[in-house]
This record gives sequence, C-alpha cells and structure tokens, in this order.
Amino acid sequence: LIAAPAISTANSGVEQLTKNPNNWAIWGGNYAGTRYSELSDINVDNVKNLQPAWSFSTGVLRGHEGGPLVIDDILYIHTPFPNTVYAIDQKTQAVIWEYTPTQDADVTIPVMCCDTVNRGLGYGDGKIFLQQSDTVLTALDAKTGKRVWSVQNGDPKLGMTNTSSPFVVKDTVLTGISGGEFGVRGFMAAYDIRTGKLRWKGYSMGPDSDTLIDPNKTTTWENGKVTPVGPDSSIKTWKGDQWKIGGGTTWGWYSYDPQLNLIYYGSGNPSTWNPVQRPGDNKWSMSLWARDADTGAVKWVYQMTPHDEWDFDGINEVPLVDQEVNGKMHKTIVHFDRNGFGYTLDRETGELLVAEKFDKSVNWATHVDMKTGRPQVVSKYSTEQNGEDTNTVGACPAALGSKNQQPVSYSPQTGLFYISGNHLCMNYEPFAVDYKAGQPYVGATLTMMPAGADVITGQPDGSTNLGQFTAWDAKTGKIAWSNKEQFSVWSGSVATAGGVVFYGTLEGYLKAVDAKSGKELYKFKTPSGIIGNVNTWKYNGKQYVGVLSGIGGWAGIGIAAGIDDGTDKSNTEGLGAVGAYRSLSSYTKLGGTFTVFALPN
Amino acid sequence: LIAAPAISTANSGVEQLTKNPNNWAIWGGNYAGTRYSELSDINVDNVKNLQPAWSFSTGVLRGHEGGPLVIDDILYIHTPFPNTVYAIDQKTQAVIWEYTPTQDADVTIPVMCCDTVNRGLGYGDGKIFLQQSDTVLTALDAKTGKRVWSVQNGDPKLGMTNTSSPFVVKDTVLTGISGGEFGVRGFMAAYDIRTGKLRWKGYSMGPDSDTLIDPNKTTTWENGKVTPVGPDSSIKTWKGDQWKIGGGTTWGWYSYDPQLNLIYYGSGNPSTWNPVQRPGDNKWSMSLWARDADTGAVKWVYQMTPHDEWDFDGINEVPLVDQEVNGKMHKTIVHFDRNGFGYTLDRETGELLVAEKFDKSVNWATHVDMKTGRPQVVSKYSTEQNGEDTNTVGACPAALGSKNQQPVSYSPQTGLFYISGNHLCMNYEPFAVDYKAGQPYVGATLTMMPAGADVITGQPDGSTNLGQFTAWDAKTGKIAWSNKEQFSVWSGSVATAGGVVFYGTLEGYLKAVDAKSGKELYKFKTPSGIIGNVNTWKYNGKQYVGVLSGIGGWAGIGIAAGIDDGTDKSNTEGLGAVGAYRSLSSYTKLGGTFTVFALPN
Ligand SMILES: O=C(O)c1cc(C(=O)O)c2c(n1)C(=O)C(=O)c1cc(C(=O)O)[nH]c1-2
Ligand SMILES: O=C(O)c1cc(C(=O)O)c2c(n1)C(=O)C(=O)c1cc(C(=O)O)[nH]c1-2
Repeated sequence: LIAAPAISTANSGVEQLTKNPNNWAIWGGNYAGTRYSELSDINVDNVKNLQPAWSFSTGVLRGHEGGPLVIDDILYIHTPFPNTVYAIDQKTQAVIWEYTPTQDADVTIPVMCCDTVNRGLGYGDGKIFLQQSDTVLTALDAKTGKRVWSVQNGDPKLGMTNTSSPFVVKDTVLTGISGGEFGVRGFMAAYDIRTGKLRWKGYSMGPDSDTLIDPNKTTTWENGKVTPVGPDSSIKTWKGDQWKIGGGTTWGWYSYDPQLNLIYYGSGNPSTWNPVQRPGDNKWSMSLWARDADTGAVKWVYQMTPHDEWDFDGINEVPLVDQEVNGKMHKTIVHFDRNGFGYTLDRETGELLVAEKFDKSVNWATHVDMKTGRPQVVSKYSTEQNGEDTNTVGACPAALGSKNQQPVSYSPQTGLFYISGNHLCMNYEPFAVDYKAGQPYVGATLTMMPAGADVITGQPDGSTNLGQFTAWDAKTGKIAWSNKEQFSVWSGSVATAGGVVFYGTLEGYLKAVDAKSGKELYKFKTPSGIIGNVNTWKYNGKQYVGVLSGIGGWAGIGIAAGIDDGTDKSNTEGLGAVGAYRSLSSYTKLGGTFTVFALPN
Repeated sequence: LIAAPAISTANSGVEQLTKNPNNWAIWGGNYAGTRYSELSDINVDNVKNLQPAWSFSTGVLRGHEGGPLVIDDILYIHTPFPNTVYAIDQKTQAVIWEYTPTQDADVTIPVMCCDTVNRGLGYGDGKIFLQQSDTVLTALDAKTGKRVWSVQNGDPKLGMTNTSSPFVVKDTVLTGISGGEFGVRGFMAAYDIRTGKLRWKGYSMGPDSDTLIDPNKTTTWENGKVTPVGPDSSIKTWKGDQWKIGGGTTWGWYSYDPQLNLIYYGSGNPSTWNPVQRPGDNKWSMSLWARDADTGAVKWVYQMTPHDEWDFDGINEVPLVDQEVNGKMHKTIVHFDRNGFGYTLDRETGELLVAEKFDKSVNWATHVDMKTGRPQVVSKYSTEQNGEDTNTVGACPAALGSKNQQPVSYSPQTGLFYISGNHLCMNYEPFAVDYKAGQPYVGATLTMMPAGADVITGQPDGSTNLGQFTAWDAKTGKIAWSNKEQFSVWSGSVATAGGVVFYGTLEGYLKAVDAKSGKELYKFKTPSGIIGNVNTWKYNGKQYVGVLSGIGGWAGIGIAAGIDDGTDKSNTEGLGAVGAYRSLSSYTKLGGTFTVFALPN
C-alpha cells in the first residue's frame, strides 16, 4: 500500500516515520492519505472496553479540525485561530512547549468563510510546520518550539487565509490557500523546509505559465482517453480576466506518491457562487491535480464539476491505493467529491475508471459520462438554467456536499473506503455580485434541509438524518453498507488492522464500528462536537486513539460564530448552514478538548 | 447527621430532596454542608475501575467553581461569567434548556477580585436560583428555564459582585456579596423565593440595627465563656466611619440547622489589606455567624482573626456535625479558616471547643488562646507591627490561606474531615491607599512561595509542593493523615459511604483516595485544572461522580486572566498569586468541561 524506498525523501524523514505505525507523522497517517493504521491491539473484540485515558483542554473555543501528530514520545496538537501549537509529553501529559503566533484577528477572522478552523500541523526535518490563518507559514523547532522561519503565503486583506495542513515532501513543504468566497485565485506553493524560500507555485487557473501546465505534456480525460490539454486550457474557459478572481482554492488535504514523485490534491469552486456571471467551464476550478513534486509541473488534471452552479468545491482528499478495476491492477487515486460522486482514476495517467454516486439522493446530475468525464446536469436543479434571482429548490447535495473536508479512511483488510458523509439538500438562489478585494464574493442565498431519501436507493423515505457513515468499494463504485447519523459526520475517520473504524459525530461521540459490517461497537461522548480527525498510535507498548473535539466548521458555524438568533430569519446565515443545524445546539457547546482513549490496563 | 423533621422547610422542599442520596440538591449535599453521600456502589475496592461516562463542554473559558445540582433526572450546571445555566437530561445528555443572563462585562469583570467564578446554583420550590456576577439574583423555572424574577443585590459600579451559591432555606433564598478588595461592606440577604422580595438583610459591620445584633442576646466567646456582645460591638472597633467601607464580605458557603433554625456562614477580610490604616479589631469582619433563619437576628458571632493583617478572609464553609468533644456531645460547627486554624465550636452556643493548626507550617500566630478566643500573633510576621512600606517576609500561610473557597467533606464512617489545602507562605508589604468607589482598595503588595515545611511537624523540609490533602479530627484538632499535592487543592471534596473521598487537582486530575488512609485509588486527567467541587448522585440505578474542570480562581488567575508575562516582573500580579503558580501553565489550559464518571457496566 505504502510504496517503495525513500531515496528521494531523505531530507524530511517523513516517509520513514510513517512506516512505523507507532507514530502518526502526517495528517493521513501516510503519504497515500489512507488513514489506515497497522495497529491491532484495539480490535473488534475488545474495543467495547475502550475508555478515555486522559484529556487536555486547548484553551480555545470554536471549531477544532485536524488531528494530533505523534512523533515518538511527543504529541503535537494545534488549535483554530489563534493557532496555538502544544508539544505534549506523552508520559506526563505536560506541555513541553507551546507557541502562539501573533496574528491580526480583525483582518483575518472576517475573511475566513467557514469558521476559524485549522486542519493541523506538518512535520519534517525536525520541524513542526504551522499554517497560520493569516497565511503565514511558520516552521518551529520540534524540540524547543522556537521559530525557525516564517513566510507570507498570501494577503488576508485580499481575502486570503489558510486552514489546511502543511504537507512535507522531500525538502519542501506544500501549502495551498483559502478564499474561494472572496475571489481568491487558488494555487499550490512549495517552500524549502530549511529556509522557507519559495520553490515553485502553481495556480489553479490562468496562463499556462501560472498553472505550470505544459500544453503538450499535461493530459486530461477527454473522448474516452488521456489527452493533452492543449494551449491555454484554463483561460479559454473564462470570460475576459475573470480567471484572476476565479477561485479554485486549495484548502484540502494532499497526497504524495514517492515512486511517481507526484503530489495530488483538488481545487475548489470557481468564484462567484453565481454561475450566470461566469460563463465557461471555469477551468481548472473543481479539478483533481497531479503535479511533479520537484517542479510543480502538471502531469494530469481532471475537472469533476465544469462550470459549477452549486459550490461543489473539489478540494476533498485524494487517497492513493493500488487496486484492481475492471480486471486490471491500477495505481489508483480515489476521491469523494462534494458533488456526491465517488471517483476512481488511474493516478499515473489520470484515466477515469469509476464515477458513481456514493449517496443516491444526489440529483443535480444523473451520472458522469465516462467518455467525456462530464456530469450530466439535470435542468431542474441547474441554478444557471433557472437563472439569477430564481430559487432552485431541492438540489442535492447541499453546497456543503455529500462530503466536505472530513477525510475518509481505507482498510486494505476489507478493500473498503469509509466515508464521513453529509445527507442534505438545498435551495439555492444566485444573485449578481460585484467583486471588491477582501469582500465576500458569494452571490447566492442558500438554505439547507435533510435529504429525506435513502442513501442506497435514493428513494424518498421521510428521513431527517443529516449524516451517513458509508463504506464504499472504489473498484466497483458500490456502497457496502451505510449507517445513518443524526447530524453530518464532519470528522475524519481512521481504519485499523484491528478491524475497527473510528470516527466522531457532531454531537460529540467518538464511535468505533466494525469495518466489515458497520456495527457500532463503542461510543463515548467527548466534551464537544467532533469535527477533528481520529488518529491512532502506540506509546510505551500501548495503542491509543485520540481526537480533538470542539464544535464548529461550516456545519457548526451557527454555534461557533454565534450567528444563530434561533429564528427562521437566520436560516440563511453561515452561507446557508445555520437553519439546518439549529438543533445541534441542544447537544453540544463550544470548547476545544483533546481526548485520548485506550484499553484498561 | 442531617437533623430532624422538615416541618418548617416545606416551602422549598430542599431538605426532603437532600434526604434522597440519589439527588445532589444543594452545594454541600445537605443543609449541614458535610458533602457526604450515603451512596456506596462505588467503593474502595472497585473505584480503581472508575471511568469517564460522558463529558460536556460548557462553552466558557476561565475558572469553573462549584458543582452540578442533580434533581431526579435533571442535571443543572453553571458557568463562570456570563453565568450560563444548562439543564441537562441525564438520559440523553442533551440540553433541555439553557439560560444566559444579560450582564455588562465591562462593568462587572474588572471588579471581580479573583477570576470570574461562580460557585453554583441553588434549588427550591421548583426554581433554580442563579447568582449572577453583576449581583442580580435570578429565579428560573427549573422545568423550562424561564425567568420567574430577578432582584438587584448590589451595585457593581461600587465594586460589588457575587460569586457564591444561593442557599434556599424555608421560603427564602440567601445570598451574600463580594467586594472585600473594593471596600464593600458585607451582608447576608434573604429574599422571598416566590417573589424575590427582600425579607431581611444583616451587615457584617455597622450599627446593631444594620448587623441585626441584639446587644443583650447576641453572644460571643470571651473570657472563657459565652458572653453577650454588648452595644455597638462592631462600630466601636473601627476608626470613625471606616466600617462603611470595611469589607467583611460573605462570598463563601452557607449551612443551616433546621432544628435550631440557624444559618451559619463566615465573613471576610476587613478592607483595606493595609492594617495600619484601620486600627481596631474591625468587627465583625473575619467572623463566624449564627443567624436566625427567619429574621436574620444574630444568635452568636465569633471573630477568628481580629484586626486582620494578612487577608485571612474568614468566609470558609461551616459544616455542621454532632460530635463528642472532651467527653461531651456537642452540636458542633467546624471551620477551617484561611488563617490555618481548624475551629470546632458548639453551634448552639458559640462555645469555642477546639482551635488547632491544620497545617503546622502556619507561623503568623503561635496558637489560639482558648480563653479569649484570640490568636497569639507573632511579631515577626505582624504586617502591622512591621509597618507600611516594609516587606514582612515569610509569613505563613499566604493570603490565599491554608485553605480557600474549596469546601471540605466529612465522613461519619471515619469521623474525619477532608481538607483541600494550600501550603504556601508569603511576603506582604502594606502601603497607604485611598478609597475610591469601585476602585481596588487593596493596599498591599504580595508574593507567594511554597511553605517548604512539613504539614504535620512544621519543620522546614525543603519541599516545593503548594498543596496538601489532609484528613482532620475536629474532636481533637489533630491531623490523621495528609497527602502532598504539587499545586494547591482548589477543588471541594466529597466523602462517600463507599469509604472513598474524591477531589480534583489544579493539574486536572480527579482523584479518589481511601478515606481511612489517604491511599490514592484512582486518578484521571480531566481536560483542564479542577477548581470545582466533586459531587455524586445516582441515576437509573447507577452511581455517578461528576466534576467541572476549568482552570482559574485565585490560584489559577495567571492563566485565567492572561496576566502572567512569564517573567518575575509579574510575580505580584493577581494579588500575588501569579509567581507561585507560574508552572501550572505547563500542565493545563483554560476550558470548562463537565466530566461524569461511573463504573463500567
Ligand atoms: O473556497 C474556499 O477557499 C474555502 C475555504 C474553506 C476553508 O478554508 O475552511 C472552506 C470552503 N471553501 C468551503 O467551501 C467549505 O465548504 C468549507 C468547510 C469548511 C470547514 O472547515 O468546515 N471549510 C471550508
Ligand atoms: O473579599 C471578597 O469579597 C472576596 C471575594 C472573592 C470572590 O468572590 O471570589 C474572593 C476573595 N475575596 C478572596 O479573598 C479570595 O481569596 C478568593 C478566592 C477566590 C476564588 O474563587 O478562587 N475568590 C475569592
């Protein structure tokens, strides 16, 4: 699963660290981003005896995304703005060092679209990498917490922020940018881990020199085959200069294949949310990217949602798994898009292998045409066709997607992916909006509601659950099993060699289910709603499972930002999320806590 | 232990509720304030298997004092400022209702001396009583959370605040006042539980008509006997009008004896902390009070620290226990004073029975003269004798006392009291200060340090622990056993029929120890430092133990108020507490969480 020798990554040491399952050295547990752990001390038989071992309040309210890094004896955790980092001694649970950057809250917080979240730290070369909200990327000495270098990755005054987890590959650290709701043009940037010097930067849109696309060598899936994109593949899909404020931000999770030396990630929605204002495919927003790790040169790119009309931001994570599809082994990349389709592509070539709905309530497109790679849009749910100032009713999924930032896990034991999912639909009314630097550039009013349909059949069933936890076969594009959850599952899962999958719920439960059947084996109510990722590691001979709780993120924005006045008037607040998640406040309140679980001695 | 029929308390129903150990209906578990529970499902043998059952983040940072009330199926918890109340369904752990009063943070928070704490709710007559920080006392419908009435108990613009737990007796609810560091004249007030109308108000100082002292009937301990206090017992111990700004606030915990129909409590330090400025005994600051519950008339009063020179605020709780002292059964009142002496008095008469140091590092007085009831002050540690602008060095205990607000527990099984203690000394330099309404009226600069002496022998031992957990025989005035704690134990304990005593530590551990020996049987690190009280109850056939964590209070003020700049310069901040507790920030961070423990199923 995790590939080949680490010749080229000697500098950072990350790959080596991830090969020891006692560590959790990168957001996905490994470069492939599978969130699979070889540990099996906690297993389907004994997980019912799990119990909290210790806990640690972070001192920060609002949404806590991401998870801990564990490098040998030390645990590293992070908080949302103000982005405090704690290095914690596992033995004593005492804070070895802490670091809180200086940031201007008044400039930064107002331009964070979806809560003041941070998706966690990066590690490499003896350094902890902190991606501050205000776009400053900071390297800290992992032993002392002393700042080694900082670099400005963007400008919050222009609506740029950062929420993603820095990703160390060889001697660079990769980071993206947020601000799709502020007309920010997305990019991926690689900085030297030793100095913070920019090594390369590849935009999501613009001239080929900006995107690092080679018209002849960079390919995409078209006419049933891998095809060179040709010149100006991005700018020719935009009206005039709109690509300059075109979105396609890169705030998700990244993967790396050391053998192919390619990094993978998705780009976000085109700006604005009003599709009528921006004719064209708006390439390469909403796309999967394969870039050379050394130069940023684009190997291939694939657009999931050309000319987005629903904010189906394409940034979701891209686990790398080798599997047999249609009788042939492929090095695949798997991607569960906000738009409700689960994609399997060949990660070497970008060949499209599978594209099926992982939630059958999805209705905005009938299917993906496997030849063109394009979704077949249903006119009734086309906010473009219905036009400005018309409310498109009942489009599924809602803008926050059949899945959002919460990363999936994969178990080689079952060959299944475990998807933390949303199960909502929406009403969406686009309106004309002018771009002003640093101001919201949204152009749509939304409300959201339960999908009310079965996830497997798509049949209306009057259900009110907003979440599903689904096991998926990416070789065939089929659901193996799916559990309902009252609220969206906004927490990243982890699958283990013990046959267990762990995830958190918005009410605050850490849950363990049987990887084969989905049967619930254990749950515990942590202090606050969980939007963090569950990670697992071993210390001193004992397996631990840990998760940050702390309600927030887009789903929890009503509570996190205190913008729910409790009446229908505020339903459209928080980009449409407040109404749908109102009842969440009966279950959980703000507060960041890290809870560590173990079996009794 | 808990006395007699409830004839006179029919209105509130409190006494009845406290007789069912499944409830925890009042701060002390019962009117006697013994914090003893008849429950024994969790016991010395099985407590090692205890584990967190669920947890709930309160959404509020800073110090969380007090504990939950449990009335049948519903749990009531509270937060520091802004004083949110949550009614939680034990079955689902969902919030049934919540209430947050409107308060002016800018007026109130700056005049709270020792963090924005609140010591919990009162219950009676189907109402929850919330004592807001801004002195407003509010009655809420316990079922719906709807406000029934509110009454203004003081004026924050004059430095008055409230932190204490309202105490329901018969058809009144009692509340005190805070502000001893702002020249507030303390009082106890009784409001009608149905209407909020003031029924009586008794000041700590002033003319007899204000104190509700009857010169002939009110007694005190003098010349070895219970003696009427005579006319003007308070104002004749003050220079001029100083009693009007004389302190003696009443922010502690109150007890009630239904048979004697007396309520008991302590009054705080005289204002200012500079003793040179206020000649006289400054009566009745620093005193224990016994008042008629219906009229407020004072039955007896006893001053522990006449003319305070160290801020040995006398408000600590007053558990009521019947025990044999010197061969004779007494209805006793027991009181562990800030000044380091453990007092046992006859609660009917005010006769002084025992007064011994419960921490032998105490050096400000050699002993209490049992005839006069007065402590024999050691000149070297007299900040008055050393004078203004002279640093009195090494006085023990420190101003925050050998014990502070953290209430003790008592087990009738062992006949011992369990004292959460501090183990610090101080340097104290008084200086001249002018009174300005609503401004600090402190007049002393302090630093604190470890006592560095054995708690039982008083011998210097180079120890650095700031806390002790001590078992005390109040019949003889002797320590049974004492455990060291790295930091002050700022959490109230509970003793149970299972032979276990529970308390929390500033690092955040909930601990269970053997009531007989002090042997540690269980510990768990809750999210944040514990300054709350551990309570226990039974729901659906299962015994639970619950505690609020959330570092703060005076000991945690450096973290809570963010006033520790990490250098010696800030050692004197937080009224002298910042330096001594600096290292606490390596162990714990802010954040309010309620954690519930139980045995596994
Ligand atoms: O377009 C962007 O730049 C951008 C940024 C972010 C972010 O950085 O958190 C989110 C989104 N978009 C977004 O569309 C979205 O659904 C979302 C959810 C969350 C979250 O953390 O819960 N962030 C974001
Ligand atoms: O004189 C007063 O009115 C007053 C009030 C309070 C309070 O209300 O919290 C404290 C004190 N004094 C005080 O002396 C003190 O040590 C103290 C500790 C605490 C605490 O909650 O940790 N409060 C207070």
